Amino acid sequence: MAALAPLTLVAAAEPSAAPMPGVSPGEVIAAAPSGHWVPIAPADLLVMELAPDAAGKPRRVLIQLIAAPISEPWVANIRKLAAAHWWDGTAIVRVQDNYVVQWGDPDGEDAAKAKPLPKGVVALSETDGLRKRDYVVGLPQDFSDQTGSRFPVPPPRLPADSYARNPHFYKSWPMANDTKGRAASVAGEGGGYQAWPVHCYGMVGVGRNISPDMGSGAELYTVIGHAPRHLDRNIALVGRVVEGIEHLSSLPRGTGELGFYETPAERTSIQSVRLASDLPEAQRPKLEYLDSASESFARYADARSNRKDAFFNIPAGGADICNIPVPIRKITQ
Amino acid sequence: MAALAPLTLVAAAEPSAAPMPGVSPGEVIAAAPSGHWVPIAPADLLVMELAPDAAGKPRRVLIQLIAAPISEPWVANIRKLAAAHWWDGTAIVRVQDNYVVQWGDPDGEDAAKAKPLPKGVVALSETDGLRKRDYVVGLPQDFSDQTGSRFPVPPPRLPADSYARNPHFYKSWPMANDTKGRAASVAGEGGGYQAWPVHCYGMVGVGRNISPDMGSGAELYTVIGHAPRHLDRNIALVGRVVEGIEHLSSLPRGTGELGFYETPAERTSIQSVRLASDLPEAQRPKLEYLDSASESFARYADARSNRKDAFFNIPAGGADICNIPVPIRKITQ
Repeated sequence: MAALAPLTLVAAAEPSAAPMPGVSPGEVIAAAPSGHWVPIAPADLLVMELAPDAAGKPRRVLIQLIAAPISEPWVANIRKLAAAHWWDGTAIVRVQDNYVVQWGDPDGEDAAKAKPLPKGVVALSETDGLRKRDYVVGLPQDFSDQTGSRFPVPPPRLPADSYARNPHFYKSWPMANDTKGRAASVAGEGGGYQAWPVHCYGMVGVGRNISPDMGSGAELYTVIGHAPRHLDRNIALVGRVVEGIEHLSSLPRGTGELGFYETPAERTSIQSVRLASDLPEAQRPKLEYLDSASESFARYADARSNRKDAFFNIPAGGADICNIPVPIRKITQ
Repeated sequence: MAALAPLTLVAAAEPSAAPMPGVSPGEVIAAAPSGHWVPIAPADLLVMELAPDAAGKPRRVLIQLIAAPISEPWVANIRKLAAAHWWDGTAIVRVQDNYVVQWGDPDGEDAAKAKPLPKGVVALSETDGLRKRDYVVGLPQDFSDQTGSRFPVPPPRLPADSYARNPHFYKSWPMANDTKGRAASVAGEGGGYQAWPVHCYGMVGVGRNISPDMGSGAELYTVIGHAPRHLDRNIALVGRVVEGIEHLSSLPRGTGELGFYETPAERTSIQSVRLASDLPEAQRPKLEYLDSASESFARYADARSNRKDAFFNIPAGGADICNIPVPIRKITQ
């Protein structure tokens, strides 16, 4: 084929290299010692099997649930939905280019036909005071001794972006907050670390109706285009696709409004969704992610921000948090 | 279906509304008078016909070429390639999730089999001094009287992002520059407006090899994921997909390295690429875009930055330039 395309981050088998100026992100990942990786607990991994494709090949999508205490009420609902096999027989209902793939009960808005939710799973509401508590982590964390900064933000420090002063990672999740480490929408809440999760590509959020409805977690979507950061703090984020997103992002786009499919035949069926911990041990997918508190992650973020090699002539000198995707790979030992 | 998904920008037939605080982007677009729209000249529109899909339906992709003098040498090559029907029989060679779709001659790197380029089309090289001149507009523009700012940046003013101090629009193209309206990489070039185009979703760039090769324009790619801004200033941008991107973004992802297809059968064929001006008048697609110098565009950018309505509880207070996609629509009169 013609001219070599731009290099991109791949967790490829590149030879280990001592850290050097200009080292590539792939080299940093390959050199990261095992102690810098964190396994995804089976109870934090959703295994979604879509109907096989036209050639009969299976299509599996793995979703890592977001770290507690972020979005806890919705994550709790999702665990109940998975335990109840609720998504079995539901479908992909919407695919909108440069935006989202959404799935759930196609009849969810029809009182007569909607699939009943499992016991204990209800839509959450702003009147539950959720937006103050649960879009934000609210832990009494203090990172100032690590950063030497008066803003309690864990390293690595990223430049301010168009949406927040302090994009950063918390337990390897992309987060943001503002001055003094607070979430501005909860001014007055009092001490401790507060931040909100960020809508990067592949992040999974909770479909909802207009205020005060906040969704239950039965209807989910994932981002398949440029990060729609205006949704941050307006919708609960509950996880990210860690494998198989191509089975969603390559689906035909819906022709209805907002990319909803207009006919049942277009909707890819969901055969099952299970928590990995509910599968026999031998069937559980085993993956690990790079710890955002590790030195390897700091070097990786720096490498993403400052590509300078035979291909990149002008290093950017910074990176959008969504251009620092958290490295995740299968566990191979 | 279940909970209504997040509202998004659609150029839908919404009723015209007088500008009000909290007006939606769609309402601004619908209310924009005809004088705020600019038709895409036929000589600036590439019409790419892919092979029909499995159901026999045609797949047309329209690409608007970027305004002069941005990337002029590559755009000039592209016009020659289109006039020579060079892309007829070439193919989609690469689809990498959350990154790019790339097309051109699958044998382009094989000296024995590569399709000869038309007369006058050669790969450009850094030794031509291009990076100083042609990644940047370099026009003696001065917008300071419009903005009241000492930085010559046209309105609307956007917040700094992780990659540049001054993201902005120039002739309705997403651009960026730094302090004093210069492109830092060309410090010392002397007066006038300088900026570089930005890799938003759907932007089309020129595949290239490592320095000093800069590509000819025969191999092109478009962004199908989160904007890879680290590519800005490292690769020439030559246009954007204005219709039909779903025919590219929904293609199966390649299984080879970097998403290249491993077998010829997987590569969607390109039947033809024509400049609209080389088609009979009745066959020319007619589209228009919103003028970034217009009041409507300023209100639209503001609406994208400050969504506050029944769905959006917390307006972002800013927007990433790539979350302000330039409105483009068919001309309906």
